[in-house]
Amino acid sequence: MNKVNRIRLADISTEAPKGWKEKDTEDETRDLVKRLGDLQQLLYAESKHSVLVVLQGMDGSGKDGAVHKVFDACRITGLTLTAFKKPTEEEFAHDFLWRVHKVAPQKGMIAIFNRSHYEDILIQRVHGWIDEKRVEQRMRAINALEELLAFDNNTHIFKFYLHISKAEQEKQLRQRMDDPEKYWKHNPGDWKERDLWDKYMQAYEYAFDNSTVPWHICPVDDRWYRDYFIAKTLVDGLEKIGMQLPPLAKEG
Amino acid sequence: MNKVNRIRLADISTEAPKGWKEKDTEDETRDLVKRLGDLQQLLYAESKHSVLVVLQGMDGSGKDGAVHKVFDACRITGLTLTAFKKPTEEEFAHDFLWRVHKVAPQKGMIAIFNRSHYEDILIQRVHGWIDEKRVEQRMRAINALEELLAFDNNTHIFKFYLHISKAEQEKQLRQRMDDPEKYWKHNPGDWKERDLWDKYMQAYEYAFDNSTVPWHICPVDDRWYRDYFIAKTLVDGLEKIGMQLPPLAKEG
Repeated sequence: MNKVNRIRLADISTEAPKGWKEKDTEDETRDLVKRLGDLQQLLYAESKHSVLVVLQGMDGSGKDGAVHKVFDACRITGLTLTAFKKPTEEEFAHDFLWRVHKVAPQKGMIAIFNRSHYEDILIQRVHGWIDEKRVEQRMRAINALEELLAFDNNTHIFKFYLHISKAEQEKQLRQRMDDPEKYWKHNPGDWKERDLWDKYMQAYEYAFDNSTVPWHICPVDDRWYRDYFIAKTLVDGLEKIGMQLPPLAKEG
Repeated sequence: MNKVNRIRLADISTEAPKGWKEKDTEDETRDLVKRLGDLQQLLYAESKHSVLVVLQGMDGSGKDGAVHKVFDACRITGLTLTAFKKPTEEEFAHDFLWRVHKVAPQKGMIAIFNRSHYEDILIQRVHGWIDEKRVEQRMRAINALEELLAFDNNTHIFKFYLHISKAEQEKQLRQRMDDPEKYWKHNPGDWKERDLWDKYMQAYEYAFDNSTVPWHICPVDDRWYRDYFIAKTLVDGLEKIGMQLPPLAKEG
């Protein structure tokens, strides 16, 4: 696969763009979050489209935080959130997309994936649990599934990579060991994964370069910019669909 | 897609090959059915492979009968049977493969589909509910799913087209109106579908010609040959996998 615009994470800043001010951005984000809530209502009422939001990123990149902030004005009746963890025994006894396809959004709904099917070509690749042939087969299967959702269920897919610097990650992981309120988030395994940082970056870049549905690389060292970036991308994307409230149903 | 060996149903007999005798064949089938039961036990015990059996065919082609006869010696603990009917409201709110992928076999299991995802490029196409572009997209998605099951869950896929003549179908449908024990099978809609016979044949041929996993065209006018054909194909296919009983688990 030869693409001209390859994504190289080392060339992309993990910080808010120069000149952006926290306070002003937060005001704008507040409006965007509210607008996203309105768009979700429209999506739900019309029930012709569906939305899939994929959040990927290294430990400490703020996936949970992004969910809380960005979807704050959305109603849970129209949302599903799936946090993909280590597969269960039943999931392991199926292909890697089985558990993912099951929770694909139905029309009218937004499905949020905290981690996703991409882990199956990230953590599994970085640790050498699958060979390169399997990585390529899985990448093709991922593209095929995402295409299927798009053409056969009007699913609009937004994939975000939460781009954190290695230094900022250290800060985040340390906070979890220093702040009693964050102890529950601490996982010694995260430090081990951190040692594989460069391999992870390469695996992510492979996923970006070979995905049919493009990725949004979201700088997250400034959390206020992360929320703005995601909310803005979603609102702009959903505005474009041209959703309409249905007319009053006729009697009979 | 240019394939040399296109399947033309009109050129393929719907009857048992000349010289085959009912009584002898039934004896052989009995052995094959028993052997299939043994192979299922091995599949279940080893739990490394999975099997998907797809049964497609016009009304009256004997899909239900084939299930009863061929899998008679299999244990229901290792089998799942899904009869795909008109999609539910929840299923309609998803892509056409959503309900199919959910019931894909887990390792150690045989999943039987009575009708299948192929209906979505058969009945839907014949009635003009989807356009040709959608047919092509769905065909690609079907191939992608079947490939995924094969490479990522060791699923061995056996697809059978139960090939019945138009005259034999008439006989079968009439029996359902004449025999009180078969009234429950009678559906006036079947006669309407029969009027679309030629369109169905074309749609089936498209599916055969464009499937990555090949189809088995099973003559069914002689039911005793149908059972032999399916049992023989499954036994030969499963023998080839080289399944092995696992050794005694070590303590600790």
